Amino acid sequence: MRIGELSRETGVAVPTIKYYVREGLLPAGRLTSPNQAGYDDSHVRRLRLIRGLMDVGGLSVSAVREVLAAVDSSDESVHKVLGAAQFAITPPSTGEPEGLEEARRAVAELVRRRGWHAEPDHPSAEAMAVALATFRRVGHGAFEEVLDDYAEACERIAAADLAYVGRHAEVDGIVESVVVGTVLGDAVLAAMRRLAHVDASARQYDEGARGVSGGADTP
Amino acid sequence: MRIGELSRETGVAVPTIKYYVREGLLPAGRLTSPNQAGYDDSHVRRLRLIRGLMDVGGLSVSAVREVLAAVDSSDESVHKVLGAAQFAITPPSTGEPEGLEEARRAVAELVRRRGWHAEPDHPSAEAMAVALATFRRVGHGAFEEVLDDYAEACERIAAADLAYVGRHAEVDGIVESVVVGTVLGDAVLAAMRRLAHVDASARQYDEGARGVSGGADTP
Repeated sequence: MRIGELSRETGVAVPTIKYYVREGLLPAGRLTSPNQAGYDDSHVRRLRLIRGLMDVGGLSVSAVREVLAAVDSSDESVHKVLGAAQFAITPPSTGEPEGLEEARRAVAELVRRRGWHAEPDHPSAEAMAVALATFRRVGHGAFEEVLDDYAEACERIAAADLAYVGRHAEVDGIVESVVVGTVLGDAVLAAMRRLAHVDASARQYDEGARGVSGGADTP
Repeated sequence: MRIGELSRETGVAVPTIKYYVREGLLPAGRLTSPNQAGYDDSHVRRLRLIRGLMDVGGLSVSAVREVLAAVDSSDESVHKVLGAAQFAITPPSTGEPEGLEEARRAVAELVRRRGWHAEPDHPSAEAMAVALATFRRVGHGAFEEVLDDYAEACERIAAADLAYVGRHAEVDGIVESVVVGTVLGDAVLAAMRRLAHVDASARQYDEGARGVSGGADTP
């Protein structure tokens, strides 16, 4: 298909498509004449992935480039490629809040307690330490009381995620599935946690909601 | 304390503090002379909250302003103020991806199935529908298979969050706690989910990790 059709198919404007090609996010089309390039379904799929990572995942052009490089590399073990993709999609921590060392120890202790196979210097461990240090700085150090509840929930989610990938991805699609699932799954999870808060808050604080509509906790 | 001391105490530069006052994020200091303002611990705490929301939560100045307005209002029921704070911290969805109507129905069905007390037009329900529609667009509509696993995990997290708030917040601190917990908790949860992925991936795909280090699944 020509670039105009690719644009109509994906809803991405032609100049934007050309920009993604220049930036190395999207492979160039196959030249069908000196002035014309042809695109196929792989371009449609890749463009949708790029837009999903940006629009829903909030990734920058350079973060998308790194993620796609990980998705496209296939000369490493699955676990290593997943690791590379994770590094690319984990935003670098901003600054070193006071109390970071103590928070790092809390994270390392959690990883040890749960028996997780994860390096203590993984960027996600560092991102978690930064968030925990910030909790302490704003007077909510006690938040760490709920870490094990969060960890059990995350173990359940990670098991469901991996099982999904095992059920649906062909071998060369595993990394793409995990990247998509991680970035878009974050968005689903954040939104769903807020909805669950609305529910919990309604049950606890809203007189009108209690015992009226026959929710799961009403006998 | 003077503005210089406030700056040293919080690590926020003096011009930035002045900017926050001009933008209405931070109350002005009490004038102690025509050219001098005095600040107290409430300013320290508020500044740390502002920086936490921005640096870890990624909120913009205007989003922080809305969140703080909700935190400061106290003439409504707790449940209503929580709702207002949630609206402020939920990023508006970007555009309407194809298949949004179908995804909205999937979200409404989930809310009904779980018995959640939550309005179907809540911005978090909409954010979730946008993410689900994007999953479908990139060929991962089957992701919806794991929604109930996510929902059970979120119910557990929301219960832990609300219990934490109930244990630690004085009445006038409940909304601040929930806002902090929601925004910073998102960061903790995203980071922790990635760590749990690392662990699950190591167990499933990394030959080296299997059966070696005596993790929780090794007999």
